[in-house]
Amino acid sequence: MRDVAVIGVGMNRWGELWEKSHRRIWTEAALEAVADAGVDHLDALYVGCMSGGLFMGQEHLGALLADQLGMGPIPGTRVESACASGGLAFRQAYLSVASGEHDLVLATGLEKMTDVEGGAATYALSTAADQEYECYQGITFPGLYAMMMRVHMHRYGTTRKQLAEVAVKNHENGSRNPLAQFPGRVTVEQVMESVMVADPIRVLDCSPITDGAAAVVIAPVELARGMKKDSIIRVAASAAATDTIALHDREDLAWLGSTQRAAEIAYKKAGVGPGDLSFCEVHDCFTIAEVMVIEALGLMDRGKGGEGAASGFTALDGRVPVNPSGGLKSKGHPVGATGVAQIREAVLQLRGACGDRQVKDARVGLTQNMGGTGASSVVHIFERV
Amino acid sequence: MRDVAVIGVGMNRWGELWEKSHRRIWTEAALEAVADAGVDHLDALYVGCMSGGLFMGQEHLGALLADQLGMGPIPGTRVESACASGGLAFRQAYLSVASGEHDLVLATGLEKMTDVEGGAATYALSTAADQEYECYQGITFPGLYAMMMRVHMHRYGTTRKQLAEVAVKNHENGSRNPLAQFPGRVTVEQVMESVMVADPIRVLDCSPITDGAAAVVIAPVELARGMKKDSIIRVAASAAATDTIALHDREDLAWLGSTQRAAEIAYKKAGVGPGDLSFCEVHDCFTIAEVMVIEALGLMDRGKGGEGAASGFTALDGRVPVNPSGGLKSKGHPVGATGVAQIREAVLQLRGACGDRQVKDARVGLTQNMGGTGASSVVHIFERV
Repeated sequence: MRDVAVIGVGMNRWGELWEKSHRRIWTEAALEAVADAGVDHLDALYVGCMSGGLFMGQEHLGALLADQLGMGPIPGTRVESACASGGLAFRQAYLSVASGEHDLVLATGLEKMTDVEGGAATYALSTAADQEYECYQGITFPGLYAMMMRVHMHRYGTTRKQLAEVAVKNHENGSRNPLAQFPGRVTVEQVMESVMVADPIRVLDCSPITDGAAAVVIAPVELARGMKKDSIIRVAASAAATDTIALHDREDLAWLGSTQRAAEIAYKKAGVGPGDLSFCEVHDCFTIAEVMVIEALGLMDRGKGGEGAASGFTALDGRVPVNPSGGLKSKGHPVGATGVAQIREAVLQLRGACGDRQVKDARVGLTQNMGGTGASSVVHIFERV
Repeated sequence: MRDVAVIGVGMNRWGELWEKSHRRIWTEAALEAVADAGVDHLDALYVGCMSGGLFMGQEHLGALLADQLGMGPIPGTRVESACASGGLAFRQAYLSVASGEHDLVLATGLEKMTDVEGGAATYALSTAADQEYECYQGITFPGLYAMMMRVHMHRYGTTRKQLAEVAVKNHENGSRNPLAQFPGRVTVEQVMESVMVADPIRVLDCSPITDGAAAVVIAPVELARGMKKDSIIRVAASAAATDTIALHDREDLAWLGSTQRAAEIAYKKAGVGPGDLSFCEVHDCFTIAEVMVIEALGLMDRGKGGEGAASGFTALDGRVPVNPSGGLKSKGHPVGATGVAQIREAVLQLRGACGDRQVKDARVGLTQNMGGTGASSVVHIFERV
C-alpha cells in the first residue's frame, strides 16, 4: 500500500446555519480544502453523512456534491456509519489512494441537522441505535449514554464533578477555536446545575445539534513531496472496528470495545503506543463518552478515565491534550462532518497552525470517531514527516 | 493493486417480504455467500443501501449487520449512491482487497422498501434526484424518465413497441429465474396497454418496489487459487463516474454520460471492448433506461438502442444477451441490493451455473448500476480465469 498524506484542509464556522443550504455549507469547506492543497483537479470525492434522507430529504450526495463542486464526472461516494460517517468516509478515501486507484481525493463530511421540525432530529439520530430493540421501546441517545454513565459512576466511583470537568476543558479549548459553535466557557457548577436531560446526563454534558461540513484533500506522500509542501502530514494508520449495536448485548456497558479494537490495530500499524501521542481528538458526544474513550485508547487505566480532565492530564498543557479543538462539545457535532473535522484539527496541530490552542511540539496525533453507543469506531493516527 | 476474485454469492427470493425483517433478509443472503465461498471468517463487510432512514428507520447498517452476522468486531461500512449503492459498495469492498488492507470481504446490498405507508416509497426514491431543483417542483422518477424517453423517441424515432420489447425480453429471462419477484411473461400488447404512469411511461415499463438483499464474498485471486476453487471469477475492472444530478443541467437528456465514462474507464482497465462481452447485466429501472444504457456501453450506436431488444440482439440467445437475470424489471429492484445482485448473476453466468437462463460460452460479463437519472454509474467487468 502507498503512503498517504493530507495536503489540504477546510471547514466553515459551525452552528445553526439557517441562511445556507447543505450544498453551500459543504462547498465552502470543500473549496477551502482544495485551495489549501493547491490542486486544480481531483480524482474522486467521498462524503460522510449520517442521514441525508431524514435530515435533509436528500440522498445521493456523492453525485450531487461532485456536480456542485464542478468536478463531475469524478466518482462521488457517500459513506455512512452514524456519527462515525466522517471518519469512515476518510478511511475509504484513504484506501482508494493507498491502493493506487486514485491520486488526489477529497474526503469530506456534512450534516445539516436543524432544517427539521421539533423531535425529528432526535428521531433521525436514534436511527444510529438498534431501532427494533432499543428505540421502539422509547429510549434515545441521552438515555443510552445515561445508562453507560450510571454504570461507570457506580462501578468506578467516577463523580459528577469529574464528568463536568470534561465539559469545562472542552469549552475552554473551544473558546480558542474561531469556528466553534459554542465557544463560551462553562464552569463545573454550571454543568452540574444545568437542565437534566436523562439522569445523570445534563444538557451541558451533551454535544449540540449542528449544521456544518469539513473537508480534507489527500494524496500519495510521494506526490505531496513533489509539490514541495512545507509540512507533510502522513496517515500513519487507519483502522475501524464494530461492537454490538444494541447496548444490552454488551458484556460491559462501561467499556468501548470497538474503540479499543480499532486503537489496537492502529497503534500496531503506526508502530506507536498511547505514550507516543502528542494529542488526541476524540468523540465526546457526551462527557461520559470522552471518559470511556480515553480508557479504550489506553491513555488512562480502565475505570480511571474520570481523572483525565479533572487531574489536568488531558488539558491543552497536560500530558496528552484531548480535544484541543473543543471537541464535539464546544465545536459542535454535525454528525457526518465530525470525523473529518477531527482530522482537520489533527493536521493543523501537526502543522503548528493552531494559534492559541496549539499543542506544544505536536508530532503524533490520533483521531477517534464513533457511531451510536460505540457500535462502530474509526481511529486514525497522523504524524509530521 | 492486487487481483481480486469473487469466491461466493448469495441472494434470496425477492418480493414483498412482509414476514421478514431487514436484518433477516440480509442475513439469509450473506450466509449463503459465506457458505458458497467456504470461508469461516471475514475481514470486513460493506453494505449498499440507499435510504435506511426513510425506508426502514434504521441507519448505521454496517455495524448492525456485522453484529447480526456474528462477525463483529470486523469493520462494517455502508455505502450509498441512490440506486447505484450496491455497485458502489462492491467497488469500495474491491478497493479494500485490491489495496492489501483486507483479504476476505463481504460485499452486500439491502433495501426493504415496502414497510412504509403509501407515497412514502416514492418520496424516499425521489431523494435520489435533486430535491431543491427537481422534486420540490413536483416531479418524481417516472416523470424524469418519461422526459428522457420522450426525447429519445422524438429525436431517434424510437417506438413504443421497441420499448415494450425490453420489458418482454426481461420478463422472458426472469421467468427462468427462481428468485425473481415478477417471473411472469408479458406481451408487447400488455406493456403498451398497461396503466399510464407518466406519459409515455406505462406501469409495465417500470421496475417494481421490492424487498431484497444480495451478497458476494471477494478475496485476492492468489488466495482463491489456494482454496482450489473450481472456477475463479476475476474482477477485470471497476469504475465509477458521475454526471449532473439534475436532468435539466445535462447537455443531452437522451444520453447517459456517467455510464459512458465509467464504461470507457472499465474497458481500458480490462483491455476489452463492447465486442468482447458475453453478456451484460444493466440498470433497466425503466425500459428507456436499458435502451440508453446499451448505447452508452457502446453495444449499439447512439440513437439505435431501441433496436436492441426488438431485433433480438440483446436476447438470451442474441449477440450480446442483456439482463439474463430478468433485470430490475422482472427480478425486482430493492434499490441498494440491485448492483450486488447484478454481480451475483455475472458470477453465476461465468461459472455456467444459470440453468435454463445460461448464456452460452460466457467468458466476459459486464455489470452496470446507476443512480438517479444517471447522476452516478458504476461499471464492473468480470472474467473467468
